[in-house]
Amino acid sequence: MKEFELIKYLTNENSQNCDLLRMGIGDDCAVIKNKVDDWLVTTDALFEGVHFDLSYTPFYLLGRKSLSVNLSDIAAMGGEPLFYTIALGIPNGVNPENLKKMYDGMNDVASLYNVAMIGGDTCNSQSGLALSITLIGKVPAKKAILRKGALSGDAIYITGTAGEAALGFNCFQKKRTGSDVERFLKRFNDPEPRIKAGKWLMSQNIVTSMIDISDGLSQDLSHIAEDSKVGFKIYADNLPLSQNFCSVARELDIDPLKLVLTGGEDYELLFTVRKNDADRFEALFKKNKDDIGCLITKIGEITSDKDERLIVDKKGNLITFDKTGFEHNI
Amino acid sequence: MKEFELIKYLTNENSQNCDLLRMGIGDDCAVIKNKVDDWLVTTDALFEGVHFDLSYTPFYLLGRKSLSVNLSDIAAMGGEPLFYTIALGIPNGVNPENLKKMYDGMNDVASLYNVAMIGGDTCNSQSGLALSITLIGKVPAKKAILRKGALSGDAIYITGTAGEAALGFNCFQKKRTGSDVERFLKRFNDPEPRIKAGKWLMSQNIVTSMIDISDGLSQDLSHIAEDSKVGFKIYADNLPLSQNFCSVARELDIDPLKLVLTGGEDYELLFTVRKNDADRFEALFKKNKDDIGCLITKIGEITSDKDERLIVDKKGNLITFDKTGFEHNI
Repeated sequence: MKEFELIKYLTNENSQNCDLLRMGIGDDCAVIKNKVDDWLVTTDALFEGVHFDLSYTPFYLLGRKSLSVNLSDIAAMGGEPLFYTIALGIPNGVNPENLKKMYDGMNDVASLYNVAMIGGDTCNSQSGLALSITLIGKVPAKKAILRKGALSGDAIYITGTAGEAALGFNCFQKKRTGSDVERFLKRFNDPEPRIKAGKWLMSQNIVTSMIDISDGLSQDLSHIAEDSKVGFKIYADNLPLSQNFCSVARELDIDPLKLVLTGGEDYELLFTVRKNDADRFEALFKKNKDDIGCLITKIGEITSDKDERLIVDKKGNLITFDKTGFEHNI
Repeated sequence: MKEFELIKYLTNENSQNCDLLRMGIGDDCAVIKNKVDDWLVTTDALFEGVHFDLSYTPFYLLGRKSLSVNLSDIAAMGGEPLFYTIALGIPNGVNPENLKKMYDGMNDVASLYNVAMIGGDTCNSQSGLALSITLIGKVPAKKAILRKGALSGDAIYITGTAGEAALGFNCFQKKRTGSDVERFLKRFNDPEPRIKAGKWLMSQNIVTSMIDISDGLSQDLSHIAEDSKVGFKIYADNLPLSQNFCSVARELDIDPLKLVLTGGEDYELLFTVRKNDADRFEALFKKNKDDIGCLITKIGEITSDKDERLIVDKKGNLITFDKTGFEHNI
């Protein structure tokens, strides 16, 4: 399926009404100009057998996740979520009790973030369960943080940790259970959108670009790099990964570094800050840590060469990626 | 599938943020309060094998229809469409050329109504093609026309004609072709959203309730009646139906009146006007007919008994509906 070609095609073909848009297709949300606050709009679909497997993900958590992944797109612009609609395709034979559990999950997340369901469409689907959610949020006018603002020299940060959702997915696939992997299973099945962190980052007027990590750290950083026409260097030794994470990954025969850099569905925020602002930013973060509710770690820097995508170790040695994992080129 | 139970469930369970809403779930669009213009939001999904059959509906027309049916919901509030997002599930084996045709159809309708695509999600679907569109529009603050404003004595009007899309669907099913049924096939495959008429009706400050006819005239009028806590009487002899419509319907062994009253997917507007305003309204309509672009016909009146759902002929005799069609009870 030539998905990206298609998206490019429709992006190019359809560009009316652009005077009302700050940002159309091509970022985490579209940004619509308004009087006081701009509006943010994002749509994400989840199809059974493609995005989820009901043998891993119970209905209640599917409901939570379907809303959380959309909330994450609002977080990635520094916005506040307000409303959502849901289109639902229901295959024959689904137990209505399970659908109620799914709505309970959605409703619980909606309550937590004060988002209201304002409409939707429910119909029969000839195959699997299909959910499509459109979320509308707001952000103070002109303050949405886009992907395209990164400049050479900017420090690169992430919230929380990366790779854990992908490790959780691997645990499900390989039927690895136990208390030491519960955290990873939860990261995959019940991601936490970084709404608080996103709003705080927006309010500091210090972040130059932002995206949420849904495709994997290195790919999402590449999106920032492409849109900002810059390159990047990641400090592998700075990446936040726990001893437990590394040992479970190795036990499952996965390179932990590869998982951190390429694992999808983390729904953490990846963002950049001007080099000269970095110390001030880190001091501000320390002061507000409890309110923000997650770690923030500097993991690299933006470089001027737009084709540069580097990963280096402590000594500055390049790490390259091959099919079996990442290797230090010493 | 207990669709309506589910919708009721989720409607009741989720009602945060209501101070920002003029209208939540339960009308053609949700209405969000804003400074100058209110925002309208609607979501409609189309699933292959449920809402469309690619042997009747070519990809280009499917693209047009998928956007038009959403535009119709904006028209039914008197609004102006602005933006849309699309979530698309694509099964394996679809020819990319066909998907381009579908986007061409969508883009052509989008251009016609000056609506911009601002985002979406494209992914693989395990079975049929699935499209879900969310459309955002605007309407001057507090001017959205809801379903719930009809009062006893109001005159009931429809734009254009009803039943023709359903007749077209029957022609497709029974492989009835020919120049005399082309109009009906087109009504089914390429409905025209009544954006112009809806905006004009809103601007006259004269319409008390409105809905678009997607479920069939009598069912959609029942939605107005339920929400307004009133009854209705339809004048069967006033219903606009052509001689050609009647003869094709009879040829296919379908009662024409049944088709007009129960056939779905007309996407015409059904609305009410205060009895005392009806003459003034009809004079205004005559003067602006060319701008509005469709017929408007008085087809009945709102009554005070909320359980009343009457269909009467010219002489006031009741017409009742049974499994084989409508019958005059003389």
